[in-house]
Amino acid sequence: MVRPIASTLLFLTLLFAFWFNQALASEPRSTAGLGVVIERATGAVLIVDRSTHTVLDQVEGFGDLSHASVVFSDDGRYAFVFGRDGGLTKLDLLTGQIVGRVIQSGNAIGGAISDDGTLVAVANYEPGGVRIFDADTLEHVASFDTGAKTIGLVDVPGRRFAFTMWDSGETWLVDMNQPDPEPLIIAGMGENPYDALITGDGRTYIAGLFGEDGLSLLDLWEAEPTPRRILPGYGRGEEPLPVYKMPHLEGWALAGDRFALPAVGRHEVLWLDSRSFEEVGRTATHGQPVFAVARPGGRQVWVNFAHPLNDTIQVLDTATGDVIHSFQPGPAILHMEFAPRGNEVWVSVRDAGKVLIYDTETFALTGEIAAESPSGIFFTARAHRIGL
Amino acid sequence: MVRPIASTLLFLTLLFAFWFNQALASEPRSTAGLGVVIERATGAVLIVDRSTHTVLDQVEGFGDLSHASVVFSDDGRYAFVFGRDGGLTKLDLLTGQIVGRVIQSGNAIGGAISDDGTLVAVANYEPGGVRIFDADTLEHVASFDTGAKTIGLVDVPGRRFAFTMWDSGETWLVDMNQPDPEPLIIAGMGENPYDALITGDGRTYIAGLFGEDGLSLLDLWEAEPTPRRILPGYGRGEEPLPVYKMPHLEGWALAGDRFALPAVGRHEVLWLDSRSFEEVGRTATHGQPVFAVARPGGRQVWVNFAHPLNDTIQVLDTATGDVIHSFQPGPAILHMEFAPRGNEVWVSVRDAGKVLIYDTETFALTGEIAAESPSGIFFTARAHRIGL
Repeated sequence: MVRPIASTLLFLTLLFAFWFNQALASEPRSTAGLGVVIERATGAVLIVDRSTHTVLDQVEGFGDLSHASVVFSDDGRYAFVFGRDGGLTKLDLLTGQIVGRVIQSGNAIGGAISDDGTLVAVANYEPGGVRIFDADTLEHVASFDTGAKTIGLVDVPGRRFAFTMWDSGETWLVDMNQPDPEPLIIAGMGENPYDALITGDGRTYIAGLFGEDGLSLLDLWEAEPTPRRILPGYGRGEEPLPVYKMPHLEGWALAGDRFALPAVGRHEVLWLDSRSFEEVGRTATHGQPVFAVARPGGRQVWVNFAHPLNDTIQVLDTATGDVIHSFQPGPAILHMEFAPRGNEVWVSVRDAGKVLIYDTETFALTGEIAAESPSGIFFTARAHRIGL
Repeated sequence: MVRPIASTLLFLTLLFAFWFNQALASEPRSTAGLGVVIERATGAVLIVDRSTHTVLDQVEGFGDLSHASVVFSDDGRYAFVFGRDGGLTKLDLLTGQIVGRVIQSGNAIGGAISDDGTLVAVANYEPGGVRIFDADTLEHVASFDTGAKTIGLVDVPGRRFAFTMWDSGETWLVDMNQPDPEPLIIAGMGENPYDALITGDGRTYIAGLFGEDGLSLLDLWEAEPTPRRILPGYGRGEEPLPVYKMPHLEGWALAGDRFALPAVGRHEVLWLDSRSFEEVGRTATHGQPVFAVARPGGRQVWVNFAHPLNDTIQVLDTATGDVIHSFQPGPAILHMEFAPRGNEVWVSVRDAGKVLIYDTETFALTGEIAAESPSGIFFTARAHRIGL
């Protein structure tokens, strides 16, 4: 009778081990409460839980993440990570596994996902143009060979994408509802557009110009959008800057009736009227702003700064333009990401190896996550915003 | 040896049954892609998957859902369902189980969740006032006994709530960051406010008045907000209407630079300038509008109508105000909910027992869900919007 009892005990043990393993593995995740942090030095991605301020997984195998960006599937389950080396990697946030990866070009600059979540597009420096992939399978769906370095790729409502060519100064608008889409080509955006943004309502596309002063604006609600120059004094600044020092346009913040944007080569944030795009004020800041990001709702704008003043954040009151708070989270602040309704903000402090979390109302430090050279922070709530 | 073999086989059978059950149960759900549909006649709630256009669960036990509304936890996992009978029920969308329920008053009118997701507030007709609960446990946290029917309860950025009293015409603003919050009481909103809204940036609170013409507006960015009357011609209409026919203010749509709102007692949608709140145009419609809802991005406004013309939807172009599409989904259209980036819309057709899903670009029918007298449709993306 000894061996049957032993085998029964063995099965009981196995059963409980299995149950325990299942119980651990099935700790459910809520995709609407997740995000990712790019570890730029090691090419890894952290999956983070916004609610608990914790890291759920560290995932490797994304290639060169020195200039990475991320979009999310509509259900928040998958992150599409765009690397500098042309890699497009699909990460399952529920399991922490990479479920697809293609090297789609030699040198890429960012991507976008269509408003219906079915298409992922990537803009390329080398060989240029835009390539579009099925979001489920990462199979290649379409290519737009522009013959030029391509920047400022964004999603536009109606399963469309917009992007702009550095060399030719053209913006192309493609409607992926068409079976064999013919791009609408808009010439005359200006000399050497280096970056572009779309406003949160998907209506206004704005390109920054490296080769001339000012910016170029398109109203995408027009049937045939025509470029219009705005902010004639905004450009390379008094001393022409190298292109890598030009401000990211995604740093524009819509706050109340105004946009806040980093001045070029100056220690200032500019305020524009959101209808006329004319300057209505300036705020003197600690350093040269890199990002000016509105707390959701727009009541304040948070600003970080270029090297060597990049250990500081300033918070501006939108109504008055005043600096209402200054503090030093640590060396090399690279990125700030707000919780979707703005109650807290996560800050990448690269050279401290930390992501710090602050209450936006009291400015108290409420959490901290260890990360290897953290740069971009991206929350899944971006899946539900136009142009992010 | 027979009994030990039998017991071994029993354990093997149990093991596989357990494994199979776990495998079934662990089909993962992505909370960012979910929603709920209220079945008003039966007091049940459907959990729906936006991606697959399917019902995942039908859950019963919510009490009287004849006038129900829903808010979501920040991670999209839990729906808080507010019933007409004062019931507050917490539903786990991952498991389909009710995990908490309190009857917190005799007659309630709706609720809100704080921007940090920790507090759920409910506005009551009987006995009046607002009661606040811990979102995790549903334990009672605070009460504001206003001694009056309370309407227009919304979340305000900074862990605050605003609400308004029908009887006294006061709006109260409470800051739940304070340990023992003292309400800021704003008098003089007007006679018998019947509903209120807050704009998507959390700045402007607008109350509709039953007892007089016009609306009352507060700028919550002011330190001491003061009521301002707008739209003096907007009110009970040429023929005074019963209160239950006054338009829901949540039906206001911010579209481009304008708000679209249902006219009172007329077959018209009004257009207001979003800065001045002055009327800038009108569109003649099929019937008396109930909801005017902007497609996310604001390019179009979708409108449904009051009985007996409630089988029709019209789509208005925001730029021109023109009606660009009219169609008849079926009898008794009660609600429309857009996908977060607006590529599709879900429509409750109560008397057809269906929720119909349309592509907003082509107007094609792309999906259909059977539901018992469906009314409100709520997607989890609301968790990440201010004032919803």
